Amino acid sequence: MGRQKDTDKKRFMSKNLKIIPLGGLGEIGKNMTVLEYGRNQIIVDCGVMFPEADLYGIDLVLPDFQYVIENKDTLRGIVLTHGHMDHIGGLPYLLKQVNVPVYGTDLTLGMVKSKLEEVGLREQVTLERIDDTQTLHLGPFRVSPFAVAHSIPASVGLVIDTPVGAVVHTGDYKLDETPAGGRTTDLARLKELTPNGVLALLADSTNADRPGRTPTEQLVTDALDELFVEANGRRIIIATFSSVLARLQEIVNLAQKHGRKVALTGRSLKQNVELARELGYLKIPKKLLVDITANVPAGELVILSTGSQGEPRSALNRMAKGEHREVEVHSGDTIIISGGTIPGNEEDVGRMLNNLFSRGANVVYGPLATVHVSGHGSREDMRIMLEAVKPRFLIPVHGETRHQHLHSQLAQKSGVAASNVFILENGATWTTDGEKAWLEDAVPANDVYVDGSLIGEISDLVLRDRERLSQDGFVLVYVPINKQRKLAGEVQLISRGFMRMDASQDLMNEAKRNLKQALKKNGRSHDDTIRETLQNFFYRQTQSRPVILPHIVRV
Amino acid sequence: MGRQKDTDKKRFMSKNLKIIPLGGLGEIGKNMTVLEYGRNQIIVDCGVMFPEADLYGIDLVLPDFQYVIENKDTLRGIVLTHGHMDHIGGLPYLLKQVNVPVYGTDLTLGMVKSKLEEVGLREQVTLERIDDTQTLHLGPFRVSPFAVAHSIPASVGLVIDTPVGAVVHTGDYKLDETPAGGRTTDLARLKELTPNGVLALLADSTNADRPGRTPTEQLVTDALDELFVEANGRRIIIATFSSVLARLQEIVNLAQKHGRKVALTGRSLKQNVELARELGYLKIPKKLLVDITANVPAGELVILSTGSQGEPRSALNRMAKGEHREVEVHSGDTIIISGGTIPGNEEDVGRMLNNLFSRGANVVYGPLATVHVSGHGSREDMRIMLEAVKPRFLIPVHGETRHQHLHSQLAQKSGVAASNVFILENGATWTTDGEKAWLEDAVPANDVYVDGSLIGEISDLVLRDRERLSQDGFVLVYVPINKQRKLAGEVQLISRGFMRMDASQDLMNEAKRNLKQALKKNGRSHDDTIRETLQNFFYRQTQSRPVILPHIVRV
Repeated sequence: MGRQKDTDKKRFMSKNLKIIPLGGLGEIGKNMTVLEYGRNQIIVDCGVMFPEADLYGIDLVLPDFQYVIENKDTLRGIVLTHGHMDHIGGLPYLLKQVNVPVYGTDLTLGMVKSKLEEVGLREQVTLERIDDTQTLHLGPFRVSPFAVAHSIPASVGLVIDTPVGAVVHTGDYKLDETPAGGRTTDLARLKELTPNGVLALLADSTNADRPGRTPTEQLVTDALDELFVEANGRRIIIATFSSVLARLQEIVNLAQKHGRKVALTGRSLKQNVELARELGYLKIPKKLLVDITANVPAGELVILSTGSQGEPRSALNRMAKGEHREVEVHSGDTIIISGGTIPGNEEDVGRMLNNLFSRGANVVYGPLATVHVSGHGSREDMRIMLEAVKPRFLIPVHGETRHQHLHSQLAQKSGVAASNVFILENGATWTTDGEKAWLEDAVPANDVYVDGSLIGEISDLVLRDRERLSQDGFVLVYVPINKQRKLAGEVQLISRGFMRMDASQDLMNEAKRNLKQALKKNGRSHDDTIRETLQNFFYRQTQSRPVILPHIVRV
Repeated sequence: MGRQKDTDKKRFMSKNLKIIPLGGLGEIGKNMTVLEYGRNQIIVDCGVMFPEADLYGIDLVLPDFQYVIENKDTLRGIVLTHGHMDHIGGLPYLLKQVNVPVYGTDLTLGMVKSKLEEVGLREQVTLERIDDTQTLHLGPFRVSPFAVAHSIPASVGLVIDTPVGAVVHTGDYKLDETPAGGRTTDLARLKELTPNGVLALLADSTNADRPGRTPTEQLVTDALDELFVEANGRRIIIATFSSVLARLQEIVNLAQKHGRKVALTGRSLKQNVELARELGYLKIPKKLLVDITANVPAGELVILSTGSQGEPRSALNRMAKGEHREVEVHSGDTIIISGGTIPGNEEDVGRMLNNLFSRGANVVYGPLATVHVSGHGSREDMRIMLEAVKPRFLIPVHGETRHQHLHSQLAQKSGVAASNVFILENGATWTTDGEKAWLEDAVPANDVYVDGSLIGEISDLVLRDRERLSQDGFVLVYVPINKQRKLAGEVQLISRGFMRMDASQDLMNEAKRNLKQALKKNGRSHDDTIRETLQNFFYRQTQSRPVILPHIVRV
């Protein structure tokens, strides 16, 4: 205990800057970074990650908050770069455990508010609005946001002045000269804010494997305009991410131009549109917006919908399956999927597209037309950022390992020394005195699984069980025994997910005979004998490996 | 029985042509088509499909052979278009049940042979070699292969003359003027073979959502050449599909040009290389090929490997995980993934790339460079095919529903009447008298699941159980009762895949108390009471839905 205190003391006495990513490195999702100087911490972003397919049954993955909670007395604030779930989705979970002010732009805080309301935390959390003209003082940190172009309005990057030098965190950005909404990435202000150069750059690595520049949003507007012309007289349904508010504005403008009303379907879309209208990020003439049930001729209507990822319960997928209450897709409809497919969703999206075509719709999706562009910069954008910032140290963030490494290669070509690029893992304690940089002991940074209302109660062992059950099901073996551990009744086999009941009768009887023989030979009944006997038997017979669960009961 | 016979008789008396797809429509995989005229059937291709993620634990999906087996007396032969698994992989299963000659080009039959050997069928099956200069007479069918460019050599499309008109089956093709190996799609011969026009075209729809032409294989050669130059002095490892033999030839040529030896790793690759060398499809100077363990300087070696899809046990993935016996990836290695990612494999491939980068390798994959191009034609290729063939009827094959519909749109723009395009499902009986075409009663065409040595014993119900088990695991409830069905001992709960054992103790005790109360109130013990009580209890407590399995035992 005394020793622990000493270590803590030493840690906080040090007048070095520490940067500790708790999420977002080696992965796309749950972005969260701690900056620490003496007994002062700030956090940049606090996101969630949506699980990959091998996380059976998991709803969400959270960063590990342990380090932050243990040091909550030193926490000066949480600064948010923008309102996407992989940057704000962890807040409701963290703010249950620490009480600290949250800083973000108006729209970002609007998104946070509705998340906090859902868990009844809205009242007790201090939300402080910032914009890209001001500077925030948080202990020894001076935080100055600068505008960036991204797929949600009011996104910022951050210049964080620390006693040992300036740190730049790009947030999520692209370099788009003609973005929807007109908000370009403000490299001029970034330079103004860093007159003495940049010690460390934490930069978005998402598209490090895409050559060239990310195309401008203007191309999407042009493609949509053309599709509006082609769909003349017929209904248009457009599915997109509910947070791409600037694109929604473009669609609203096109609707007006082509004499169409706009109707909305999908809960998150309606919520975001309401919020964005309140804050002035979305301007929709009152008469343009109609209820989804309104009686409007097909050729005079655009339906905006959620569901570009084929999510099972999304509005568009319900249409695809004929389960949407208000919208029935029929022959002649033009359906536009204005959203890229997030890796892992390909099969869901594919099935939805197939269903929509089956209903007679003409479905337009990438790469058939430029109906979506990424919100993240590609290699050329990244190179320009690197050369604008000219950092001493680069920490590639917001990317899987391959993106971090490709980002590192780019940086080296742009003049950053190889030894000054740090490919970090979550939990790494990157430390600098303003001259040199090195790694200190890592802090805990495990994936924390959310499943229903269970948080952290699902371990990797439980997931391995789920995986095994998903492959060949299980056979539970009920073995009644007497005092001498000898068989005292009928063995029963109960299986699920193994094979068809009607086809397995003979196999199960044969298995029982095998087991009884083995138990007789063995004299007594033990889990191991049962498991081994049946595992071998079933593998021999079926080349499958159901989980064998012995259940020995003294009767 | 008499009535059944009558129907059969009527069916076979009819002098119409029937085309019955048993696989490959509404899906990419298990291609198989039956052509029937009177009491004569032929089959084109007999493939397998690799399962999507929601087919838990399934190894392979087969076409439903029922219709073919019931009519095996009328079967005149199986004609193969090329040696890919989605065209030949079903043969070992079908040929166990029907004895019929199989026709294919030398390489295709070579691939079939090794599949048949694995199941001990090699000796009893007649394999007849054909090439693209001859015509095969199978009952009333005259089958003339024509060369097509595809990602495996010796691929053919088929002109099938029938008494009611010519049917063209494209097989898998692209229109590449500079393909590796020099084999172009022979549209001239196709036209020569169809002097009286084409009644029906069955054409590859795989890339119906890709605009333009599929790039030529020459671009891959150029990109690889450049990477060989860049990797000067360092080891190169290239992963590709083991069947892209023409690309393997290009790589061998590049190795020779740049003074490197070639080593192979991966079972299927070695097999295919051996076969292709025997048949003259691959020319490797004897001294060029070295054993993987040979002592060759890094800068003078290319390792060819399997594993472009991140398959768990493939050679490249074993290198990525540090589990390959002979090859250790290290800093400075250039690793080239010369294969596109098949939808559904994105997460596996991503993880493998991350691991390779972590080991210090420089990994090059699409779209960073043109290290792979598709073997299927894109929209422009498809349009050119349509306009070359000018069919009366089009049946888009080899595609999911969206691809079939997009192919149909293309055809209509190319002058095929909308009513003459048939978007079929597997099992559809498309019938024509040479003038009109219509659908008759469908034949069985379910997915047949292979799991271990179980074929057909896994039903959709079993799969639903696996899915449910994979989401929240299960709780088995052991309830000992007496004659009066009253509780006669301790209730026991056994769970797997639900939550961490150490975290669930209190919850499980509480669940038992709840259950006992419910059983007391109810008086007797019944499955429904148990299931309902615990389902509700666990959902209330955890928002999760483990499968509840009551096991009531009279003691």
